[in-house]
Amino acid sequence: MMASTIENLYSRSTAAMKHSFIRQILGLTKGVPGMISFAGGLPSPESFPKKLLSELFFEVIREEGDEVLQYGASDGDKVFKDVLKDFEEVPYLSDDEMMITVGSTNAIYYFTRTLVDPGDVIICEAPGFPGSIAAMEACGARMVGVEMDELGMIPQLLRETIQEQLDKGRRVKFIYVIPEFQNPTGKTMDLNRRREIVEIAKEFDLPILEDQPYRELRFSGERIITLWELARTQYDDPRLVTIAKSFSKILGPGLRLGFAAGPPEIIAPMVKWAQKVTVSPDCATQRVAARFIQRGLMRKHIEGIIDLYRPRRDAMLEALETYMPEGATWTRPEGGMFIWVSFKNAIDTDELFRRAIEKKVAFIPGSNFYPQGAERKNELRLNFSYCSIEMIKEGIRRLAELAKQAGGHQCL
Amino acid sequence: MMASTIENLYSRSTAAMKHSFIRQILGLTKGVPGMISFAGGLPSPESFPKKLLSELFFEVIREEGDEVLQYGASDGDKVFKDVLKDFEEVPYLSDDEMMITVGSTNAIYYFTRTLVDPGDVIICEAPGFPGSIAAMEACGARMVGVEMDELGMIPQLLRETIQEQLDKGRRVKFIYVIPEFQNPTGKTMDLNRRREIVEIAKEFDLPILEDQPYRELRFSGERIITLWELARTQYDDPRLVTIAKSFSKILGPGLRLGFAAGPPEIIAPMVKWAQKVTVSPDCATQRVAARFIQRGLMRKHIEGIIDLYRPRRDAMLEALETYMPEGATWTRPEGGMFIWVSFKNAIDTDELFRRAIEKKVAFIPGSNFYPQGAERKNELRLNFSYCSIEMIKEGIRRLAELAKQAGGHQCL
Repeated sequence: MMASTIENLYSRSTAAMKHSFIRQILGLTKGVPGMISFAGGLPSPESFPKKLLSELFFEVIREEGDEVLQYGASDGDKVFKDVLKDFEEVPYLSDDEMMITVGSTNAIYYFTRTLVDPGDVIICEAPGFPGSIAAMEACGARMVGVEMDELGMIPQLLRETIQEQLDKGRRVKFIYVIPEFQNPTGKTMDLNRRREIVEIAKEFDLPILEDQPYRELRFSGERIITLWELARTQYDDPRLVTIAKSFSKILGPGLRLGFAAGPPEIIAPMVKWAQKVTVSPDCATQRVAARFIQRGLMRKHIEGIIDLYRPRRDAMLEALETYMPEGATWTRPEGGMFIWVSFKNAIDTDELFRRAIEKKVAFIPGSNFYPQGAERKNELRLNFSYCSIEMIKEGIRRLAELAKQAGGHQCL
Repeated sequence: MMASTIENLYSRSTAAMKHSFIRQILGLTKGVPGMISFAGGLPSPESFPKKLLSELFFEVIREEGDEVLQYGASDGDKVFKDVLKDFEEVPYLSDDEMMITVGSTNAIYYFTRTLVDPGDVIICEAPGFPGSIAAMEACGARMVGVEMDELGMIPQLLRETIQEQLDKGRRVKFIYVIPEFQNPTGKTMDLNRRREIVEIAKEFDLPILEDQPYRELRFSGERIITLWELARTQYDDPRLVTIAKSFSKILGPGLRLGFAAGPPEIIAPMVKWAQKVTVSPDCATQRVAARFIQRGLMRKHIEGIIDLYRPRRDAMLEALETYMPEGATWTRPEGGMFIWVSFKNAIDTDELFRRAIEKKVAFIPGSNFYPQGAERKNELRLNFSYCSIEMIKEGIRRLAELAKQAGGHQCL
């Protein structure tokens, strides 16, 4: 059998898959001595509760091995669900409104599979999170981005974009948002903006997928009600929003644990997809996370992560202030893992990236966060969770130096 | 937003998903006091290496937590891959010919996604494994079954079936087989049959997906070369066969761990699907399984499982011999977890099932293992791995009693 024969057998969605530039970038920067990388979206290993997790795995498998090593429910472990409902302060939630997933990308994939046929439209933030966009495009979705201001998607543009798509005769399936410490911009929707987005979704009878991987990592400002809870409690519409959350940023992404909460009409088919794709999440891991929460360890642990990341964010903001040339602006996120930098004078960040890796500092050029054809070239994403404060200072100094050169060069 | 609005938004594949009768059966039998269930495909909890796994999880997370709690590679952990290649005695395999998956159903899903568009044909055994069939149908596959004799798919019928589908203008994408201790029949292809299947696949230039979840559980007879290795070594065609294996039957299905090996042209797009669907398998679990093998624990552990299951198989075969009415026949599997019973006198096993659960004995009626429209009603699947020998004897006695009554009834 020839390689070409196999490639001729590929499904249309497989044949259409694009190469991930971000993976290439991460490949270029990984393991290079002296490289300061703000490119990845990695939590700091210092945030991993290694000692506690190792002890809990030991206990859980020793004590509950007969159960947690056996096949588990595709919608997730009942014990873990109950613990999670308490932790999330939604004890009223019924079991068919929640499922545990193999990380939150897994939930996003099942949600998309549940609703999207090839050619269907998903409305998303521009710039948006490429991991989700790739999962959605793999289902054949046409991603249509809505421009953001400092508070996220601009409501008037959201309304116009949906209407435009409907006028073209396209099927719009849902609105996808990361309302807090958004990836890549670090922006957060305020309460009023959340209301506006929920109202527009209601107006068009369109479900919202609310992706909240960073919600627990708030360093400053007030906690804001989720769109999911807002729709349930203040708009009396528990079917409108499905929320996805992750344990990747609070326990560790190697564990592959997340969950989704939404209406039974969405969760039930998502569970049917899970039956066919993974059968269930890892059962031991679910009970370990359950015990971690039950023992009251989670809140304190999250505070520790915040104490680790807040000074890193502050150090990066300060270094940007100190070193960046005039014309550069950046977001001031209240939490999460990312800062978004924009250059007024149209510095090409794809070009800047090539020079930056020579000087051993890495970031992700902004063009990677836009749907194809809508790329902007004068922006970049910085991660502040992974590097130490010293590395952050030095890395931003190097980067600012290159930006000055690039800006100067382009002024000639 | 109305429930009906959401349902109108379902994708075609979601709207077309069937209800799983097997899940209903398992629901009916689970937790019923006194129920003897031969229905599930569950390994015995006695086979789980709880003590060893709990200690290994403790060690791995304590010692390698910084790495195993971080994001891992979508194609699987390099350390685990290397250990696995040694264990499987294929040290020559390159990394791009292997991927680790979230159980083997996960591998089957990615393989199918890689090749199948809605309406494409997959050739499978009839009866076949409903878990795989459901995953394949979810990708839009049209499942076409090939009748089996004692050695699996009948070669002449396989050839005719493929030709028939091609003549109808359909795209046939691959052949799916479980060549050892097949689910549901317990049948095993001998070497000659394997050759014939490989030769037919070559003749039509069609990939084979070889599903081998039970391979390590051989109680008697000689180990036979896999179709995968046969194609590589004796037909000089390393691209023809992709093999999927699982740790569910040897370590425990709650861990969700499996792998696939095949040509880079298949593995690469499967990994791209994994990036979008699960990101990676659980990283701690992979290193735990690696240590389990590295310490030389696996072979001994598998011998222990065989020593546990062999007498159960023997007890079930003996009880069938003792109690079953004339006209009943059954397979004599050399390993695995299942025995397949056929009744000559056309007992309807769907009807028998309803009576059986009243008498507190359960099995899966044979009709559930056939593609829609091709069901047979006079067969049933028995699992022998989960129940104790005493339960097996009593359960088969009850079942045989009911079969006698049903047979007698139908003779009137």
